Amino acid sequence: MKFKVTSELEYNVRYPSTFIFNIHALRTKNQTVLEETLSLDPFFRTEELNSAVSENRFLRLDVDKPTNLRIVYTATVDSYFQILDMNELNALPVVQLEGHILPYLFPSRYCQSDKLFRLAQDKFGRIENVYGKVLAINEWIYNNVEYLSGSTNSQTSAFDTVTERAGVCRDFAHLGITLCRALSIPARYFTGYSYQLNPQDFHACFEAYIGGQWIIFDATKLSPLNGLVKIATARDAADASVASIFGNVISTYVKVSCELLEQNFVPLFYNPGEMKGISY
Amino acid sequence: MKFKVTSELEYNVRYPSTFIFNIHALRTKNQTVLEETLSLDPFFRTEELNSAVSENRFLRLDVDKPTNLRIVYTATVDSYFQILDMNELNALPVVQLEGHILPYLFPSRYCQSDKLFRLAQDKFGRIENVYGKVLAINEWIYNNVEYLSGSTNSQTSAFDTVTERAGVCRDFAHLGITLCRALSIPARYFTGYSYQLNPQDFHACFEAYIGGQWIIFDATKLSPLNGLVKIATARDAADASVASIFGNVISTYVKVSCELLEQNFVPLFYNPGEMKGISY
Amino acid sequence: MKFKVTSELEYNVRYPSTFIFNIHALRTKNQTVLEETLSLDPFFRTEELNSAVSENRFLRLDVDKPTNLRIVYTATVDSYFQILDMNELNALPVVQLEGHILPYLFPSRYCQSDKLFRLAQDKFGRIENVYGKVLAINEWIYNNVEYLSGSTNSQTSAFDTVTERAGVCRDFAHLGITLCRALSIPARYFTGYSYQLNPQDFHACFEAYIGGQWIIFDATKLSPLNGLVKIATARDAADASVASIFGNVISTYVKVSCELLEQNFVPLFYNPGEMKGISY
Amino acid sequence: MKFKVTSELEYNVRYPSTFIFNIHALRTKNQTVLEETLSLDPFFRTEELNSAVSENRFLRLDVDKPTNLRIVYTATVDSYFQILDMNELNALPVVQLEGHILPYLFPSRYCQSDKLFRLAQDKFGRIENVYGKVLAINEWIYNNVEYLSGSTNSQTSAFDTVTERAGVCRDFAHLGITLCRALSIPARYFTGYSYQLNPQDFHACFEAYIGGQWIIFDATKLSPLNGLVKIATARDAADASVASIFGNVISTYVKVSCELLEQNFVPLFYNPGEMKGISY
Repeated sequence: MKFKVTSELEYNVRYPSTFIFNIHALRTKNQTVLEETLSLDPFFRTEELNSAVSENRFLRLDVDKPTNLRIVYTATVDSYFQILDMNELNALPVVQLEGHILPYLFPSRYCQSDKLFRLAQDKFGRIENVYGKVLAINEWIYNNVEYLSGSTNSQTSAFDTVTERAGVCRDFAHLGITLCRALSIPARYFTGYSYQLNPQDFHACFEAYIGGQWIIFDATKLSPLNGLVKIATARDAADASVASIFGNVISTYVKVSCELLEQNFVPLFYNPGEMKGISY
Repeated sequence: MKFKVTSELEYNVRYPSTFIFNIHALRTKNQTVLEETLSLDPFFRTEELNSAVSENRFLRLDVDKPTNLRIVYTATVDSYFQILDMNELNALPVVQLEGHILPYLFPSRYCQSDKLFRLAQDKFGRIENVYGKVLAINEWIYNNVEYLSGSTNSQTSAFDTVTERAGVCRDFAHLGITLCRALSIPARYFTGYSYQLNPQDFHACFEAYIGGQWIIFDATKLSPLNGLVKIATARDAADASVASIFGNVISTYVKVSCELLEQNFVPLFYNPGEMKGISY
Repeated sequence: MKFKVTSELEYNVRYPSTFIFNIHALRTKNQTVLEETLSLDPFFRTEELNSAVSENRFLRLDVDKPTNLRIVYTATVDSYFQILDMNELNALPVVQLEGHILPYLFPSRYCQSDKLFRLAQDKFGRIENVYGKVLAINEWIYNNVEYLSGSTNSQTSAFDTVTERAGVCRDFAHLGITLCRALSIPARYFTGYSYQLNPQDFHACFEAYIGGQWIIFDATKLSPLNGLVKIATARDAADASVASIFGNVISTYVKVSCELLEQNFVPLFYNPGEMKGISY
Repeated sequence: MKFKVTSELEYNVRYPSTFIFNIHALRTKNQTVLEETLSLDPFFRTEELNSAVSENRFLRLDVDKPTNLRIVYTATVDSYFQILDMNELNALPVVQLEGHILPYLFPSRYCQSDKLFRLAQDKFGRIENVYGKVLAINEWIYNNVEYLSGSTNSQTSAFDTVTERAGVCRDFAHLGITLCRALSIPARYFTGYSYQLNPQDFHACFEAYIGGQWIIFDATKLSPLNGLVKIATARDAADASVASIFGNVISTYVKVSCELLEQNFVPLFYNPGEMKGISY
């Protein structure tokens, strides 16, 4: 499915600063970047680099003097996903997980799964099927946490959200990840562009590792699960924030869009009885 | 320098459980494991695996029935370290860091560097030399945090320790890491065996990335810096705990030792004026 | 109903220290202290004083030199309670509450009701009857929080317990208070001696203010509601801890008992359908 | 010294709601309210009431239907303060404190003094004179916490501020109170109108109890210590917030002013060497 994604970001750089952006569409075997452009005004040299610990295309940029910076990224992306029959995918016990999956079991900055162990066991521990467990987690977050712009900030973690019951997509994703890990289900943060998200913005979801596949879940239910263009996956937003800034900078403008370049888009969401999972 | 290290661990396994241990001496170009033995009573099949996100040798073990488990690991290790002249090592600005180093700049479970930014800047931001900065952090922790067994637990993070001012080696290390990252200095957790640590136990220190080298620091000052045998390095203890347990298990016994197999050991510590750094 | 209560406390006083104890049986119109004795070994002068903000009999004691201190308090108490028909007691809206009740609506050290507002509304907001609301809170805590000795400490607050789902009587009481206040129901901490509590210890419950009466609830269900001897009520344990210590002291021994001096004790607990409330 | 104080508050009341305001100038032996007016548009019946646990004049108001509410309070106040020679005021040890002072020693919602014990001891424990201790606390907060509008919210407590090092007057006051209590010095929250505060707003300070007198401190140094009109004192902002709202309301406008009705105002601040204390 072909999408055109765009992000426009403006910053007032007050002192020399280094940026690490996560805005590029990822290149994976299921996601082809057909073309992309990046423009900076004023121009600064950029560098793309990868992290060993997450899937992403960091864009690093050193702004060596005060300025107003404008960045525009556009890409045409062919994104492919599979619909899997979750009846056939059993949970892998910890003893069978590949080594590179283990970190997604451990707690991380915004996902203190060590603190939610009892709560997760009590609420979801008795559900037998692992897909059913994650779907129940997703529904529980959707039903119990209020989507409320401005209610949280970059320091808010799942430990806050599980009690305060309000947040944005990032907080919903962190809570989903945390509850999965507390049940020994590997889970990770997914950030990307999202078709039909209203209003348009960067979006965050989470993926659970079931039967050897990363299955996507969106506890906000704000975006069709088949309308995503992946920017990054990571343990949590600490490793995949839109912009990590080392210096003194004020964000002044953000605009994001995701358009479909095809017709016949049928939005997909999970239906509790159906046992279908979407994997990018 | 040759050491013999031993760890004896006993557990009461109440339900089938999976363990992931970090007790093996790491094999690196500077650390050679000359021989090692692992014994389990009763016997269970074990598997060694690596994580992509940290340096370690995870030992995974599935105990499929209730039992009392005893594990004994011994190794003879030749550990080599360098003493570097820190006058010659300048800090690398974020823009020059290799991609695989970036994760050590970001906050993690026990190291909420995003929350300590102002405090770190105020206390240490004006020190010019980056080694001097980290040494000042190390001294500050040593002088301001009380080493107090039992004062903290596996949920304690740097955000707690910076205020409550008490903890064990793990907490000292987490606080050191957090303050470094808040100053844009990559830092990581180091866990290992430690010669002349009294009483003997697993030890935790931290490493800061200065001039392309990981330099070791121990804010507890309980262990000579040249008496360490590395088990793992990681972003924090979430990725390198002695035992991650998935199941229902009670720890009943821990005994750790580290003996020197050579003579002429001269314990090394940093002296404020000296500008020397030890790198494993 | 007549009880004999006893508490024996021993401390190793390392430096001159001041104690403020809450161990005396309270004197109220419904609770008569028939006789009581207090012995200290070695002897120190004590002083009894009251706080304006809570019901208690603080015992203050200045130990001006290092010593091993032993305190024994015994009392014979006639404790009277009412069983009220909760059908007849309606909630008082905030606008009708007496001024001295308002503080029991506001958050306090261990009861951060401001943070649990959404959670309380979602879970209990739709229950019409206020007694029904508090009973549902009590049941929810009983069913969702595990009683686990040693799982918490003197810094643990309701914000922790609501997520970590484990604690002791004090934590159960704090969570009950917090959820009530988040629903605009005044609530306070109750600490006392408890008949048939097993093992014997100081006990903590909570009271909700319904229809002008303080009704007692015990989310641990460990103690019959008609077997309590009140020591203090307060906004939370910050104002009614067994011992507030200003100095350097180690607690070495605690023994508490509560014996019935009558016959024919029929333990009372609430039954969901019954609409009965006990008020001391 | 005569002041004219005014506060104008506007709210969009979306559902029937009850307000408890703290905006009235307090009547004390040192503060005379010469005249005051309160106007509500539309009109609702109001009630003034007092709390047993704090000095304040709660204004309670029930708005029984959706509306836009405007409240204007004005008062002419004669405020008197003493300048005390702090050389003559010694700290009272805990054993000599009156019973009604004890609650100001205990931790409260925003002042978790139990968690800052070690930090307070380390930083200020060695200062002999108690006034010197509090002045050092005040200076330390002033020098180490950045005044930053919008950096905190109504849930921010001293435990956050001591690490995050940013906040507004309320946070500065809470941290001052907390550090005092951690050193066994009773301390409380003071909120009022403030002459020469720029921009004009409700202000918060703290008072420490030294030698039987409540001495005022302002760690923001934004307001002359002799230009205050007291609204309330309390254990912390939980008991003295400008408006506690039970219902569904959006604040839409706040304007506060404090004018001097005399001439010859000489702003007073403490000077480190002077040993003077101001008591209202």
